[in-house]
Amino acid sequence: MITFENDYSCGAHPAVLKRLCETNLIPQPGYGFDCFTESARARIRAACGCPEAEIYFLTGGTQTNAVVLASLLKPWEGVIAAQTGHIHVHEAGAPEALGAKILALPEHAGKIDPDELRALAAALLADENVEHMVYPGAVYISHPTEWGTLYTREELTEISGICREFGMRLYLDGARLAYGLAARDTDVDLPLIAALCDAFYIGGTKCGALCGEAVVFPRQAPAHFINFIKKHGALMAKGRLCGVQFDALFTDGLYLAIGRRGVETAERLKTILAKHAIPCFMDTPTNQQFAILENARYQALREKLPVGFWSNPDPEHTVVRFATAWYTTDEYLEELDRIL
Amino acid sequence: MITFENDYSCGAHPAVLKRLCETNLIPQPGYGFDCFTESARARIRAACGCPEAEIYFLTGGTQTNAVVLASLLKPWEGVIAAQTGHIHVHEAGAPEALGAKILALPEHAGKIDPDELRALAAALLADENVEHMVYPGAVYISHPTEWGTLYTREELTEISGICREFGMRLYLDGARLAYGLAARDTDVDLPLIAALCDAFYIGGTKCGALCGEAVVFPRQAPAHFINFIKKHGALMAKGRLCGVQFDALFTDGLYLAIGRRGVETAERLKTILAKHAIPCFMDTPTNQQFAILENARYQALREKLPVGFWSNPDPEHTVVRFATAWYTTDEYLEELDRIL
Amino acid sequence: MITFENDYSCGAHPAVLKRLCETNLIPQPGYGFDCFTESARARIRAACGCPEAEIYFLTGGTQTNAVVLASLLKPWEGVIAAQTGHIHVHEAGAPEALGAKILALPEHAGKIDPDELRALAAALLADENVEHMVYPGAVYISHPTEWGTLYTREELTEISGICREFGMRLYLDGARLAYGLAARDTDVDLPLIAALCDAFYIGGTKCGALCGEAVVFPRQAPAHFINFIKKHGALMAKGRLCGVQFDALFTDGLYLAIGRRGVETAERLKTILAKHAIPCFMDTPTNQQFAILENARYQALREKLPVGFWSNPDPEHTVVRFATAWYTTDEYLEELDRIL
Amino acid sequence: MITFENDYSCGAHPAVLKRLCETNLIPQPGYGFDCFTESARARIRAACGCPEAEIYFLTGGTQTNAVVLASLLKPWEGVIAAQTGHIHVHEAGAPEALGAKILALPEHAGKIDPDELRALAAALLADENVEHMVYPGAVYISHPTEWGTLYTREELTEISGICREFGMRLYLDGARLAYGLAARDTDVDLPLIAALCDAFYIGGTKCGALCGEAVVFPRQAPAHFINFIKKHGALMAKGRLCGVQFDALFTDGLYLAIGRRGVETAERLKTILAKHAIPCFMDTPTNQQFAILENARYQALREKLPVGFWSNPDPEHTVVRFATAWYTTDEYLEELDRIL
Repeated sequence: MITFENDYSCGAHPAVLKRLCETNLIPQPGYGFDCFTESARARIRAACGCPEAEIYFLTGGTQTNAVVLASLLKPWEGVIAAQTGHIHVHEAGAPEALGAKILALPEHAGKIDPDELRALAAALLADENVEHMVYPGAVYISHPTEWGTLYTREELTEISGICREFGMRLYLDGARLAYGLAARDTDVDLPLIAALCDAFYIGGTKCGALCGEAVVFPRQAPAHFINFIKKHGALMAKGRLCGVQFDALFTDGLYLAIGRRGVETAERLKTILAKHAIPCFMDTPTNQQFAILENARYQALREKLPVGFWSNPDPEHTVVRFATAWYTTDEYLEELDRIL
Repeated sequence: MITFENDYSCGAHPAVLKRLCETNLIPQPGYGFDCFTESARARIRAACGCPEAEIYFLTGGTQTNAVVLASLLKPWEGVIAAQTGHIHVHEAGAPEALGAKILALPEHAGKIDPDELRALAAALLADENVEHMVYPGAVYISHPTEWGTLYTREELTEISGICREFGMRLYLDGARLAYGLAARDTDVDLPLIAALCDAFYIGGTKCGALCGEAVVFPRQAPAHFINFIKKHGALMAKGRLCGVQFDALFTDGLYLAIGRRGVETAERLKTILAKHAIPCFMDTPTNQQFAILENARYQALREKLPVGFWSNPDPEHTVVRFATAWYTTDEYLEELDRIL
Repeated sequence: MITFENDYSCGAHPAVLKRLCETNLIPQPGYGFDCFTESARARIRAACGCPEAEIYFLTGGTQTNAVVLASLLKPWEGVIAAQTGHIHVHEAGAPEALGAKILALPEHAGKIDPDELRALAAALLADENVEHMVYPGAVYISHPTEWGTLYTREELTEISGICREFGMRLYLDGARLAYGLAARDTDVDLPLIAALCDAFYIGGTKCGALCGEAVVFPRQAPAHFINFIKKHGALMAKGRLCGVQFDALFTDGLYLAIGRRGVETAERLKTILAKHAIPCFMDTPTNQQFAILENARYQALREKLPVGFWSNPDPEHTVVRFATAWYTTDEYLEELDRIL
Repeated sequence: MITFENDYSCGAHPAVLKRLCETNLIPQPGYGFDCFTESARARIRAACGCPEAEIYFLTGGTQTNAVVLASLLKPWEGVIAAQTGHIHVHEAGAPEALGAKILALPEHAGKIDPDELRALAAALLADENVEHMVYPGAVYISHPTEWGTLYTREELTEISGICREFGMRLYLDGARLAYGLAARDTDVDLPLIAALCDAFYIGGTKCGALCGEAVVFPRQAPAHFINFIKKHGALMAKGRLCGVQFDALFTDGLYLAIGRRGVETAERLKTILAKHAIPCFMDTPTNQQFAILENARYQALREKLPVGFWSNPDPEHTVVRFATAWYTTDEYLEELDRIL
């Protein structure tokens, strides 16, 4: 069986699983106080060029977004995000359940526009009724975005500057960060993200781990963050599970290698789609490709192959997501070519 | 290195890890719709004698308690628990953060007393000020309790009857259920628990899994429970991670075998403590043993061996928890004997 | 001193205050179980043509919206509202703080469009990822809207039909309902609202009371709604305070008379603005009028007279709200004419 | 009709109502920015000897307790209270709904014991598992307590010292503060309370107002407290309603006069109960008296007169609360004497 439905269809990258097996019977303290977690932290700090960073491991993206945003926001603040932001559409209201109202901005290929961001923040803070409103306390961006697109170094720098100008914290959702870092023409790397953001996470679940996201506070974590994690049911007894995996992901360049495999297979997938005259809804440089299919062709395809429903741009067509990952082999691509 | 600090110091039982390795590259849908999760559900339904049970997998105990209790309670209800209940003392306020006020009952070796339960429920519902109060909507019990003790079939049956009489749901926290089911003289098994409770969970993290708890609703889950899980950040993209592990735990009697190992090593540990004239704070039939040490002896011991601080019954003594588990080998016990 | 800043600048309508004085020393039970509250309920049921209605009194609009919406929604649901809806922009995140995510629709002179409502509800429920999203559980409309506009009988009927078709509850925010009911050409009255909505409130604070909003559930209130009120800090010990006031407001047609006074003075205000060549941003039939002023004229005006800042449609202009109310006397209008 | 059911059975003290009538048609800004509220603040600051105090007005006790405690606590903290504390038993879980877990202490005639407080705080902070627990962030006391008793200057001073020693904020619930300040032998006054507490409220609803509680932060209010109030539905559009009332209550010693009336009538009530051989459950110096009646006598009495059910100390007896207030006239007492 093959699949392009998403990038979390298989277990862990073999090197990650191997490390779990090797360390399995070494007893360690719980709750993230184990030696593997400490080692993973050191490796991530080094990769980020950020020796002071405080790092915590959570199990999934929605949990991470909700817990971190809630910890970054004061009770009178909300978070600005693109209207396509994952926190706004696909998290079942989890951020709001922890008190974070989302202030939506228009999206441009999944990204927010710095000028629109500045205008919104300025308008909110200048409003004479601001005491009845939600203050803009943080900005959420995803990189890659939900459309697989990437911010440039220049855009991120501008957004970060606006955040500092208006006293907002910048938070980056890196659920698929490996594929973003490994994209061909990107000028964004981990040290840049660490320099510009107040918090971000390095995605594990979609980038080679069984589960786990590494939350990085480049300068300082919110006070008593571990209690906050516990209070929201996100503290794992066997913290080692994430620690061991991220230790492996940040050894010998594995995280980037995983990203490269996803990006390369996505490039080849694009070629196959073009060969079969399937237009892309959007051209993206990472591991997610969005194609437009007539509804009948979509229905026929999904009987042979799991793909991701995305939207209906008009009543006759369906936008479908093809996702590649570290586990997308040549066989996957050949089989897709055959089916199409 | 050896440890008796807790029962989650190592990774997964080798048979569980083996199954993760074998299934690693088989692609499957996300969010618990995979074939391994379905198989695990079928095995657990069979073990509970409960073909209609709805089963979900979450990652940890605090998360499970908070999410399940919140889903069981109406907005005007709270949950009755022993004052030593894990939800009341060691979950950083997680149940309250989801709206569940805890109505505390005295504890008797970690257990609630059926007569005190009936009296409290009756008094609360008869109070003329009940509209200003929190209604008793559910009863939380842990089995084994936080003191490692067990309810009897008769006690559970009586508590369940009181719950039905007063319209309360009965929820059982089975974080260490394997060790409870494998205790020597217990008359409580999974079919009994399924027959008497409205919800319970079968602990994985402390009983052989890397992570994961199986939530069982023997008759019917709350409506849209999967959305509720997602809203509280507890839905794993790779649902297979828990599915595969519980599939292994419920194959060939592994879950009970794990429990037996923990209980047998605890029995031997008790003998060693007695040999060294260390009194037990409480005699318990499962994998946790609580010993009383003079403070100086406690300090000396913990420099050689991780053990769990529990409480200070008086200024001169410390109660210490020794926990065994599936990974407690003969070597562990011999080393402890040597150290003492 | 005169003011057009808002419609809550004075105390209570004299007839309301008189009734408070007359009843002041008559002892009554607390929490809304007094005879005045019961009488007010009976009068409102009669005015709504709804003998079965359940009625509760809360103290303010934001509180009412948050508590009622939270009681109407299931944990996996959110509420659809115009992007200008009061709950979305001017309640400091109160609905979200009780768990109600807002799903924003475009606004048309403050109103939602039935076709856009149907399209959104259908799209949300048809989405294959709906388990990761917030279900549309209720629709929020304000009448008059935040722009002072009104729905027609036909529009309300269509919106109500869509709600029933998709299993959504319809909730109407009547903070300024008196002015809406008293508008010249409206075909919407209380019995129609009661027939079409699942819940609505009759505004007191902005329509003649010191404080208080009457929440009407025309068919059935959510279970244990009084506990829900208490749990959210909204249950008044002296429930009589709202009871007495609404009893007066619904005696001898006072509520409508108050509305008429506000509407008539607004009409005369419109004439004065036109005389002074001040264009309206929007023509509205109720007690709020929105005028466009050059920024310098706005600054000059607000030094002589409190008016409400609304927005900056462009860098040179300010939209200003002039609100009339039951206390807007001829003297107010003459003074405004003089100042302009 | 007469009543001893509670101290909120009538409207407002006549002098308070008179002031509402006098100011009724003077237009003022909303949300507490009116001149009456400013005047009330100045009078309360003077009465507290606390020129820097920040003061806010909310509508009721449960709302006040929940909002203020939530604003005082960090997300990882809870509040210590007597197990009889109003927040723990009679607020329908409102504090917990805003995230404040209650850490219960034994009660001694409604009061907490300083030694037990110190021991609890010390034990919680010394626990090696504190990261899994709720930190003690605040201490809640009521004065008068729910049993009508009072703390002494010495006790309050000691409790305040313990709070500062352990970094906890001290919060005093003064729902019935007028009756406490006016008690015969008390050595506690407003300046002392302001000096010792981090926040407290001066009760209006039960001490002469239609509604309203004055929240006093003697040194500094939490940041953006007005937004916090709004977010929790507690900000009144007509803030003047509370402002005018507290302005009257703190003019010419009215607040203390109201307290004295309640205390004096309670003393006479005690004499009447003694005359009829009805024992007191507890001797209290304020306006609440708790009597023990055989159940049959309680049932007979309540058919003639509203009194407050309190508890059943044993199956044959009922504890009944008799409350006096500013409106308890001689006629009330004579009628009670006749009925008994």
